[in-house]
Order: sequence, then C-alpha cells, then structure tokens
Amino acid sequence: MRSRLAFIFRQSFKPHLITTGIASGLVAGYLFSKYKPIVHANTHANVIIGERIPTLPNYAMSEVAKHTTKESGYWLAYKDGVYDVSSFVENHPGGKQILKTAGKALESCWKIFTIHQIDHVYETLEQYRIGNLPEGEREANEKHQETVLDLFQYDPERVNANETFFIRSQRPFNAETKPNLLVSSFLTPVEKFYVRNHMHVPVVNINEFKLEIRNEKSSHSLSYDDLVDKYKSHTITSAVQCAGNRRAAMNNEHQGAALGTQWYVGAIGNARWTGIKLRDLLESFGLDKEGKHVQFWGLDCDTSQRCYGASIPMEKALSEDVLLAYEMNGELLSSDHGYPLRVIVPGTVGARSVKWLNRIIVSDKEADSHWQTSDYKILPPSIKEPQQADFDRVPALQESNVQSAICYPSSDDDGNKIKVLSVQPNDKDQRLTVKGYALGGGGRAIQNVQISLDHGKTWFQAELEQLAQPYMRAWSWTLWTYHINVNDIPSKPFDIVCRAMDIHGNTQPDTPLGIWNVRGVMNNAWHKITLQLDDSFLKKSKS
Amino acid sequence: MRSRLAFIFRQSFKPHLITTGIASGLVAGYLFSKYKPIVHANTHANVIIGERIPTLPNYAMSEVAKHTTKESGYWLAYKDGVYDVSSFVENHPGGKQILKTAGKALESCWKIFTIHQIDHVYETLEQYRIGNLPEGEREANEKHQETVLDLFQYDPERVNANETFFIRSQRPFNAETKPNLLVSSFLTPVEKFYVRNHMHVPVVNINEFKLEIRNEKSSHSLSYDDLVDKYKSHTITSAVQCAGNRRAAMNNEHQGAALGTQWYVGAIGNARWTGIKLRDLLESFGLDKEGKHVQFWGLDCDTSQRCYGASIPMEKALSEDVLLAYEMNGELLSSDHGYPLRVIVPGTVGARSVKWLNRIIVSDKEADSHWQTSDYKILPPSIKEPQQADFDRVPALQESNVQSAICYPSSDDDGNKIKVLSVQPNDKDQRLTVKGYALGGGGRAIQNVQISLDHGKTWFQAELEQLAQPYMRAWSWTLWTYHINVNDIPSKPFDIVCRAMDIHGNTQPDTPLGIWNVRGVMNNAWHKITLQLDDSFLKKSKS
Repeated sequence: MRSRLAFIFRQSFKPHLITTGIASGLVAGYLFSKYKPIVHANTHANVIIGERIPTLPNYAMSEVAKHTTKESGYWLAYKDGVYDVSSFVENHPGGKQILKTAGKALESCWKIFTIHQIDHVYETLEQYRIGNLPEGEREANEKHQETVLDLFQYDPERVNANETFFIRSQRPFNAETKPNLLVSSFLTPVEKFYVRNHMHVPVVNINEFKLEIRNEKSSHSLSYDDLVDKYKSHTITSAVQCAGNRRAAMNNEHQGAALGTQWYVGAIGNARWTGIKLRDLLESFGLDKEGKHVQFWGLDCDTSQRCYGASIPMEKALSEDVLLAYEMNGELLSSDHGYPLRVIVPGTVGARSVKWLNRIIVSDKEADSHWQTSDYKILPPSIKEPQQADFDRVPALQESNVQSAICYPSSDDDGNKIKVLSVQPNDKDQRLTVKGYALGGGGRAIQNVQISLDHGKTWFQAELEQLAQPYMRAWSWTLWTYHINVNDIPSKPFDIVCRAMDIHGNTQPDTPLGIWNVRGVMNNAWHKITLQLDDSFLKKSKS
Repeated sequence: MRSRLAFIFRQSFKPHLITTGIASGLVAGYLFSKYKPIVHANTHANVIIGERIPTLPNYAMSEVAKHTTKESGYWLAYKDGVYDVSSFVENHPGGKQILKTAGKALESCWKIFTIHQIDHVYETLEQYRIGNLPEGEREANEKHQETVLDLFQYDPERVNANETFFIRSQRPFNAETKPNLLVSSFLTPVEKFYVRNHMHVPVVNINEFKLEIRNEKSSHSLSYDDLVDKYKSHTITSAVQCAGNRRAAMNNEHQGAALGTQWYVGAIGNARWTGIKLRDLLESFGLDKEGKHVQFWGLDCDTSQRCYGASIPMEKALSEDVLLAYEMNGELLSSDHGYPLRVIVPGTVGARSVKWLNRIIVSDKEADSHWQTSDYKILPPSIKEPQQADFDRVPALQESNVQSAICYPSSDDDGNKIKVLSVQPNDKDQRLTVKGYALGGGGRAIQNVQISLDHGKTWFQAELEQLAQPYMRAWSWTLWTYHINVNDIPSKPFDIVCRAMDIHGNTQPDTPLGIWNVRGVMNNAWHKITLQLDDSFLKKSKS
C-alpha cells in the first residue's frame, strides 16, 4: 500500500483528528515532464500556472467534484485551472495519496506540503490541464481553505538553516549539508547533520513515551527510563547516508530522470551514537529467535495512521552494533533527528534508521510500509516509470554500497547547479587542496581513495583520515585530502574525479549509466567536479 | 618473506630431499618487457633466445658463478647467453626465489617450471643479456642437469585437458574452464572445474594424513577418520573464484600490464562442497576465542619447507558456512582440488580456500606466506611495479566483489585472443542467445544482470537461474540468459556488455581504468565481447 501523501482538507476531516503524511521524494517525479510534450506553453517560467486559458472550456467545481473514481477519471482544480490527472496517478511519487485531492482544489495541500512548490511540479501539473473554473470559483476555493490546520507547526525552528544546508524542501524538511561543512570535521555536528524527514516532526512528551515491542504472540512496553536504565549503553561512530544521496547526478539524457529529492553530495553525516543494543532488547524478551525481520515504526504517521516504517533482516538486527540510540554526539537526540529514540543501523541505508521510534515488531515479514515495499529499491534500468515495476521482485535496500565525493573546493551555491568552479591554489605551496569523504557499505572499510585529472587514465592516492575499526564493522566515514600540484593542472576548465575502493575490491562505477534506476537510489558513480584556476591567479603566476 | 619460486639444481640439493615451490603468477610479470627497451632485437619470434651474439664478450661459467650477491650483481646463463638480472630481481613475480638461480644455468629450472616457457619470459630475459658463454660450456651445463628430479611427476594425469580448459601453465597446472562449458550446468563438474595450483600436487597417504590444529598454547592432531567421524557434516553450494579471474582484460595501454596468469573469464566454478564446519572444529578445542586470524597451510611446500598458506579473520572463520571440505559434488576431492582436505571459504577469493590442508593455526597474526602478505592485494594504481609497494599498508584480499561475464556465445579459441566472434542466431526464433554467470561477493545475492548493446546507454534484463539462499549467505553463482532480438543487432561488428548488481547496489565499474592494479586482481569491470552475425545468416535473411 502506497501511503506517502495525505492531502488534508477541512471538509473531509475533523481538525482535531488530523495528522498528516508527506510526499517523500515527490519533487523529482515531476522531472519526467521534460520527456512528455507540454500541452500548453504556459510553464512557470513564462506564465502563471493555473491562469485562465481562454481557448479551453469551463468546468464548475461541482463538475470537478464528480471525477473521483477510476471510471470517471481523477480531476482537480488549481487556481483557475481544471486538471485531469488520471494518467499521472501511477507516476505520482507519493503513490495513490494523490487521490485524496481528486474532485477538490489543490491550494491548501500545497500550502502545507511545500515540497510541491518548484517549477517542475507546476510544469507537470500543467500538462494535465483540460479547462478553467468559471469566474469566481477560484476565490471561493481560496476562501474555503483559509483555516486548514498546519501540522508542520510543531516542526522545530531551524535557525539560519540556509547557511548550513541546501534546503530541498521545507515541508517535510529535507536539507543536505553544504559540502565544505561536511569535510570540516570528522564528526558532523548535530546542527550541521543532514535532515531527511518523510513527514512532520512528531511532538513527544517524554513522560508518556512508550516503546512497544511485540510479535504475534506477545507484546511488551517500555518507558524511556526503562530503556535507559535497564539496558547497557553502547556507543558507536557511524555514518548515516540517505539511499538517495547524489541522486541529482543520476539524471541523464539517455535514461531519464531519477525520481526523488535531488540531493547533491550532502545527504550524509558521521556521528557518535549512544543507545542500547537492539540485540540486548530482543534477547531480553526472547524475541531474537522468533522471526526473520525486525520492523521499526515511527511516530510520524499519516491521516490513516500509517506511520513511517522500515525493517531489517533478523541477522542484521542481532549483530553487534545496531542501536536504539538516544544520544547523538553526546547530547540527547534533537527533534529533527528522532527525539527521543531512533534506530541506527550502521552500514545500511538511512531509510532503515527509523526516527521517533515507538514500535518494534518481530515478524516473518518485512514492514509493509511504502518505504520498504515500493521505495528504496533499485528498479531495473528498463523500468522508466515506477508503475511498470513489479516491486515484489526487487529486494528492499539494506546495506549501502561504496561511495565517495569531492566536497572541497565548493561554494555556497547549490552543487547541482555549478558547472565550473573557480579556484585559487593555496598561497603557501601553490597547490590546490581537494577534500572529500568516502564510505564503504555494510561495514567494509575504505582501502583507498583515488583522484584523477584525466578521467581515470592516471590516478593519485589521497591521504585518508579514518578510524581503526573492527573487521567488517567500519561504520564511520573516511575523510580524505589530496594536494594537486598546480603544474599538473591545465589552465582551461578541468575535471577532477574521485573514487573509493573498499578492502574487498568493491569500487564505484565510472558513470551512472549502468546503475541508473527510476527511484534514483544508490548512485555511487565517480564524483566529478569541474574547476578552473582563477584568472587572478593565472595573471599572478605569469607575472 | 617471498617464497614462490625454488629453482632446483642437483648440485645444491640431495635428490631425496627435494621438494619444490613454484612461481605463481610468474608469466605476466614479464609483460612489463614491453615498457622497457629491448637491448637486442633477438626476441623469441625472430631469433633463438640464448644464441651466441658475436658482438658481446665471453664470460665463463666460473665467472658467472661469482655473481651471486647484491654487491657483485646477480648473473645467470641460459643456452649460450650470459645475463645480469640484478635490476630484474625486484620485478620477479616469484620474489627473491629467483636468486636461487644466480651464478647458475637456467635450463633445468625452466624445464620443470614450464610456466616460464612463453615468449614474454624469453623476451624479458634477453633484455638483461650481457655476454656469451665460451664454446662448449653450454653443452657442459646441459649435461650437468640431465638428472634433475622432476617433482611434478606426481601431478595427476589430466586426460584431454585441452578440450576442457585453456591451459595457462602446465607446471604448476593452471587451467581455466572454457566459457561455453562454464554455463552448461549450474554445478560445475569436477573434471571441468578450473584448477589453480601454486605448486606441484602433493601425494597424500590417507592412512598417514594428520590435520594439525594449534595456537601458541596448545596443539592437537586429527586423523582423516577423526575429522569425518567426530564432526557433523555440512554441505553448501558455493562458487570458488580466483582473485585473478579476468586479469587479462585489465591490461591496458594507459596503465600497463597486470601481473599474473592471464585468465580470461574461466577461473571460476560452482560446486557442492561437503565437509565439517571450521567453527565446530575450533570450538571443540576452545580455539574460537583465542586469536584474530585463522591460518590454513597446505601440503604443497617449497624447498625451504615454506608451504602454501593463507588466513581469514576469526569473524569469518566462526561464520556458518566455512568448511573443511572432503567432498566436491558428492565425490571425494580429486587430487587437483585438494585431496584429502581443503578449506572452502565461501564469498571469499579462492586463494583463501587452501587445498591439501594439513595445518590450522589460530593466531593474532595473518599467515606470513607470500600469498597473504605480498600477493592477492589490490595495490594502488600508482604502483606500477610491485617492489614500489608498501605491502603492509594494503590489506589482504578477503571477500570477492560483484562479478559477471558472458560465456556464450564463445569458441574453443582462447577468449583473450578473439577480437570478433562470428555468430548465428537460433534457427527457431531468430534470436541470439547470450549466457553467462554472475556472482556477488561476501554472500551478497545477485539482484539483476543487465545486457547492453550500446555500451550502457540502454539495458536489457537477463533471466536468472539462481538458488534461493539465506540472507548474506548467497555463495552460489547465478547463471543468466538473454535472447537478443536479431532486429536489435547492427550487422557490423557490435559489442555486448554485461554487468551484474547485488542486492545492496554494489555493481561493476564500466571499465578497468579505475580499478587497475599491478597484481591484476579483482577485475570486475563490465565484460564485453564483440560479435558479428555470420555472413551466411545475413545472406539468408536478405533472400
């Protein structure tokens, strides 16, 4: 069951019952627009979407309201426009939650779920334009929705977030760390750690908090104090990385758009996590031999009380370092990072490290959440639209693959948009310093990071800053530095690529061509940036 | 300590004491010759190596015999030629064992170690030519060596091996399965399973066979019957793959030669192995908590009684499926595959699955054998000759990486030498069938195998034949088939590439450029073959 997007309307729910769900990964779904003919030329850049188009017929809201079924088609209104989105439903990254808007006007939903407020979404919508609302109905819609409850009102205040993050969406809050900040410390400070929320941030009263642990036969409940007091604490240093990190670089003209938040290289961070071992908890209730999967469910739930959930195989759940964490870098978890309790599944994609954890279910089945069954999967490259996929045939992602990225030099501008970065060598030694991170999947340590200035014909070895970690438990990232000799640099724009190798010879593919997938997950192709020595340096060095 | 090559001379050893060691991976070491100026033009193809060169001075064998130290230089003779190999010593893939030939004539050694009998070795030798032997000394050398003991005389008879294998060297026997045979059955028959011997095949009297198990504090010994009777048997299906499989494809003009046996795609096989769990054995002697590494040592030993040896981390040793195997596909091990006992470390490079096992040492240190400390390591691409390497900084290979190869269509000719293969579509459906194998490393199951006819711009999904295997214990290979529609094929030569992805998104790099290493291990770049539809088919389809 897909349940990523719940559009909220006052007329269909009683306000005091309203909770919400969010369209994770919604933005890039609309990137497909460029592969479809745009019916009208009124894209956001040229005209205002939803403006009246005189050549189209009028449909009253009462007519729109009749189109809420597969047979009648799914219609909706936005501003003065009327849209038939029937053929888009299956493309909607938020799944069938889009149907909750059928027969209605979109404004109030998009006002809350600001993830929709980008050009590609507007452009996509306009492709499905079939008519106009009669005069006056737009205003009636707008008035009607004034008092819609904003469930994001309890999200934390994020002071000066723009200085630290490239914010990919405000609601839900999805923000990646700017690259130069990523490599400025081995442990990522909490306030600089990327945030990937699938929904709003739940408000938790710690005195009322309960963690439920159950299987089919038994159910147990623990207070926060029980957890902290009764189980031994355990601390690990581990990176957490979103499976969609570096998704933007996966889009290409041959294969199409990769759907989801268009992360550059910053949906990753490295922190010290303290909590209790999941293994200890499961063993204490005799649940360690009772199922094949351990499901984690969060407090962030949609209107149907479907919550964010994910699961991991029991083998992993029983391994040394899977934590129920209550501290991050020595402080209580912040609300954006899962206060009061989150899972940390080291070596595994971030989607399994469920935040705001309040239920653990031991089962022979994986979690039946959208994020386990229909997202965070590597669909075959032949699948160009998710609805073509037989999701059951594709396993849910668990371990990460080997990854690396160049983070310095960089600028405060979005890395996805920078074509050529102008740089100055170090004053002292006339070398150009390059820095980045590398991370092996599944606890595999990084063996080396290589830099190439000629697209992989010759390679230079970077210096590594890494923890000594037990065999197959190398959860932490490895930072690396390389100093390019200015004499090795052509003065015209030149490319730097990096690639890492783990100790087992797993490495990164040269390009994303072979790993493209419509969900845009697990892009670990060589990271490339294009640099050019600053003119002032060139003049100085000539003089 | 490097100990791969022991050159045997009657004058220096008593025949009844002679055992031997072999230069594993020796052949390709000489490929470096093409990056060095050849002093004389008398390569094997044009003149007979070691023939007298009138312009060079004469040196008597008594003079050659004086050059056996670093100070005096290392000289040796071959036929009528005298050579100063001082500057080659560090390049010798067999390590310093070459020094055992210093001051002497090479003939008897090369007669036994036939791995040297290829053009590149001759060419390399000739680069170090400094003079001639006086008339008559060549004949004296040849007479002197007539009675050298041939330790390979106990190697098994390998009937019609040329029909099954591309034989890469006879002594030691290194032979890879022809590709079409590889994919003709899910379990590779014993007689078709690739053979990678590092030395001669030891002769074992099963009644005298003992397995020694020890650490610093204790030592135990078990007979073959003890092993089979006292421990529970366990059977797994697992591929075994040489770390050097597909090495030949790693050589390239930018980076140089990859040293070692020039395997095409056939240094891999898949079999059912029955034996006892290493874990059970270690636990029975309380050795499971006693060290960080478990070393395996074989009965194939060199003249200094240094034996083939390797080790694995204790974590892996204690895992479910590491076997001391005595059966392969339901039959007792054959002598080429380690009779009576070998290790099977599933998911790990073949070099750790030690054959003819007779000693297990639990230690805080890895095995100190050449194959653990100085070979089977991925040196950084900047290292162009092994002697430049700081081996201690590079970890010994353990897990394999994700791999795949196209095995059908193929021909009986060496895949390394075929540029374009002429093919006929199936008569029945006019499709071209392509088959191959895929293997994930470390027990990671294969998620998909993709075929591309346009170098990775578009991909087709192959059908998989694979076992249902427990999570993270997918040791067996996956065979795959894809039927190319003839209409998708250009009539001129076209390339097919394949690549596999494991369930965690680990995949293969597009080219070997980024993974090149001088030892030539772990090449898992996309496998490419070039095909052309047979003229007769083209004529038929036009008519």
